[in-house]
Amino acid sequence: MGTSAIAELGQRARAASRIVALASAQQKNEGLLLAADLLEGRGEEILAANADDVAEAVGAGVTSAVVDRLRLSPARVASMAAGLRQVAALDDPVGEVVRGWVRPNGLQIRQVRVPLGVVAIIYENRPNVTSDAAGLCLKAGNAAFLRGSSAALRSNQAIASVLRAAYANASLPPDALVLVEDTSYESARQFMQLDGCIDCLIPRGGSSLIAAVKEHATVPYVIDGDGNCHVYVDASADLEMAADIVANAKTQRPSVCNAAESLVVHRSVAERFLPDVAARLDGVELRGDPATVGILGAHRVIPVTDDDYAREFLDLILSVRVVDGLDQAIEHVRRYSSGHTEAIVTADLAAARRFQREVDAAAVVVNASTRFTDGEEFGFGAEIGISTQKLHARGPMGLRELTTTKYLVEGNGQIRG
Amino acid sequence: MGTSAIAELGQRARAASRIVALASAQQKNEGLLLAADLLEGRGEEILAANADDVAEAVGAGVTSAVVDRLRLSPARVASMAAGLRQVAALDDPVGEVVRGWVRPNGLQIRQVRVPLGVVAIIYENRPNVTSDAAGLCLKAGNAAFLRGSSAALRSNQAIASVLRAAYANASLPPDALVLVEDTSYESARQFMQLDGCIDCLIPRGGSSLIAAVKEHATVPYVIDGDGNCHVYVDASADLEMAADIVANAKTQRPSVCNAAESLVVHRSVAERFLPDVAARLDGVELRGDPATVGILGAHRVIPVTDDDYAREFLDLILSVRVVDGLDQAIEHVRRYSSGHTEAIVTADLAAARRFQREVDAAAVVVNASTRFTDGEEFGFGAEIGISTQKLHARGPMGLRELTTTKYLVEGNGQIRG
Repeated sequence: MGTSAIAELGQRARAASRIVALASAQQKNEGLLLAADLLEGRGEEILAANADDVAEAVGAGVTSAVVDRLRLSPARVASMAAGLRQVAALDDPVGEVVRGWVRPNGLQIRQVRVPLGVVAIIYENRPNVTSDAAGLCLKAGNAAFLRGSSAALRSNQAIASVLRAAYANASLPPDALVLVEDTSYESARQFMQLDGCIDCLIPRGGSSLIAAVKEHATVPYVIDGDGNCHVYVDASADLEMAADIVANAKTQRPSVCNAAESLVVHRSVAERFLPDVAARLDGVELRGDPATVGILGAHRVIPVTDDDYAREFLDLILSVRVVDGLDQAIEHVRRYSSGHTEAIVTADLAAARRFQREVDAAAVVVNASTRFTDGEEFGFGAEIGISTQKLHARGPMGLRELTTTKYLVEGNGQIRG
Repeated sequence: MGTSAIAELGQRARAASRIVALASAQQKNEGLLLAADLLEGRGEEILAANADDVAEAVGAGVTSAVVDRLRLSPARVASMAAGLRQVAALDDPVGEVVRGWVRPNGLQIRQVRVPLGVVAIIYENRPNVTSDAAGLCLKAGNAAFLRGSSAALRSNQAIASVLRAAYANASLPPDALVLVEDTSYESARQFMQLDGCIDCLIPRGGSSLIAAVKEHATVPYVIDGDGNCHVYVDASADLEMAADIVANAKTQRPSVCNAAESLVVHRSVAERFLPDVAARLDGVELRGDPATVGILGAHRVIPVTDDDYAREFLDLILSVRVVDGLDQAIEHVRRYSSGHTEAIVTADLAAARRFQREVDAAAVVVNASTRFTDGEEFGFGAEIGISTQKLHARGPMGLRELTTTKYLVEGNGQIRG
């Protein structure tokens, strides 16, 4: 695909963005509900396209985990439809007056929430992202400009075709969802450089995708990065609560970014706590410092490396460190944190306050599982990702984070002296 | 300067950022007030360093405009000090609870405002930016990591040395201001790629600097871009008010980004309005479309080109277009706007509302000059720049825009089911 071809797709998305930016919540909701119905109504067509993708992936010998992420089922299609209905039920963020005031010269200033325009998303397998992302973009008044993976191309085409048809039925521009069908590396690069066309790029994928965006993107982007999340068990912690939290944070869904990857334990409770929590972590490989090995034994703990502390395992593996106190715990977290979610279990108010103040992460949690850093768990209804950077959005990104603001200034002839 | 040398400077700024992030407003204000006093107390030293910079620039034969931007005077030093005192008087944005709520499971969530960390600024001449930017960064709890131009190096060194001494006197880390003294192109490139060290880069300079940032930066950045600002005079406008606004927007300070560069006039009032406004714009070169030339005559108007419409003149030049109505006016603005500030002069409520809704810019103004899009005029007290992009900050950036947020989550043992 030449640069002009992908730029032309971008121009279609931009033209559509101007129309959906002005659409009423009612009209956008109608589009979402029609799309949900049509996803179910044309489910067979989507599943047939997906079966072709899956067959090709299996033929190419990819891992079963990859096939699992790629594969749709009637239940997954129903879940995509349910997701769109859920987004339709959320409040429209567009038009919110964020703040407003009057200047001494009489100028009235309001900062109001408006759509971003064209939101571009590059994503790997998981064809449900096509529907989820398009729905959130539409509700926030944006056009979705989507580039999925080659392995999911037929599935994505089928889903996009259904959504575009539904939009047309709701008198919305079909180009409120534009799918890039050229999944070459070169097209990804061109995509990231469509200045003046893409208002926000959200890459959803692994570290090589993030690195490519940092290297090549010239359009503004938000990084949905790794989660190397810690749970620190303080001297004063309720140890039963701490074991529940660690077990939940590590094992409830180890493959996601808000799962815990590292346990940090205050030395004064390590002897009592580590055996209890190790028993709760049956099946979890522990990689610990010498103190941990000393307490749990070499049969249960592998010696930890610096690399282990820095790693997001996304697996049933947990690094463990025993520290002398809160200072050392904060220092450890500061060194290895990816800025996603960090938790402390403590009964000590001063320790809780210091940890929350001094740890620099999107979410700092006291006495709860790291697994709650999530758009739905936060009450945003749905999320487009979790930002681990500090600009624009930090933490779970919902509809609000898919908007920007503009200032509306009103006067009666004011000029500047 | 090797990569490691600039990275080491960055690490110093990062270490300092952790301390200033936790400093109280009182302590930060003390640092700012001491810095203001010391700027005045050591004014001779700053002026001597500046005289060397100016002499070298004059010797190198740069334009008088460049020399003027570079040159300090006792009044300019006093104005830098006044700027720091003004920032000390502003409310501290850190710690503000942006919103907070309780989830059905009892989790308490607060989104609170926290410093960004290390704010990096690349800027051209104008040594006062060293003091202005450092002061704003400090008040928002950030370390300022500054890279000025080679022409202003001695001036910047002198100012930085004064501020660092004042910070030390206030028991703040001197590295809350780190100045990069290597002003080579290569160091600028390394600077933009200090991932994990710079939390936000704000380039302040011309289009070649912006292009370099887009091409090379891997750290997050906010673009303070061009202002190709329009004033649209609607059919229903109070034409006297319109002439006042156009004259003010064009001539009050033509060299700045919120000055008007283009006048768009409704055909039904063009015959009456254009001669009046042209008389008010004595000394302003007009570049107009055929209708404008027809009304004002070829002696007064140069035929406009498409390039003229797209240009930010920053000079006493104004492009002029006569349109058939609001639709065409919005279409014209949409095509050429740089997304900074767009104004309409109208008495028609529906026209005002449509213009504000449909024009996509940081500020959309009704019946006032474009010149008000400015941190001080908006009431923010001071500004670090004006963002023309949509992520993180849009429009004037004050202290609030130099912060991010984090989520503080508190529970009593909640785990995810």
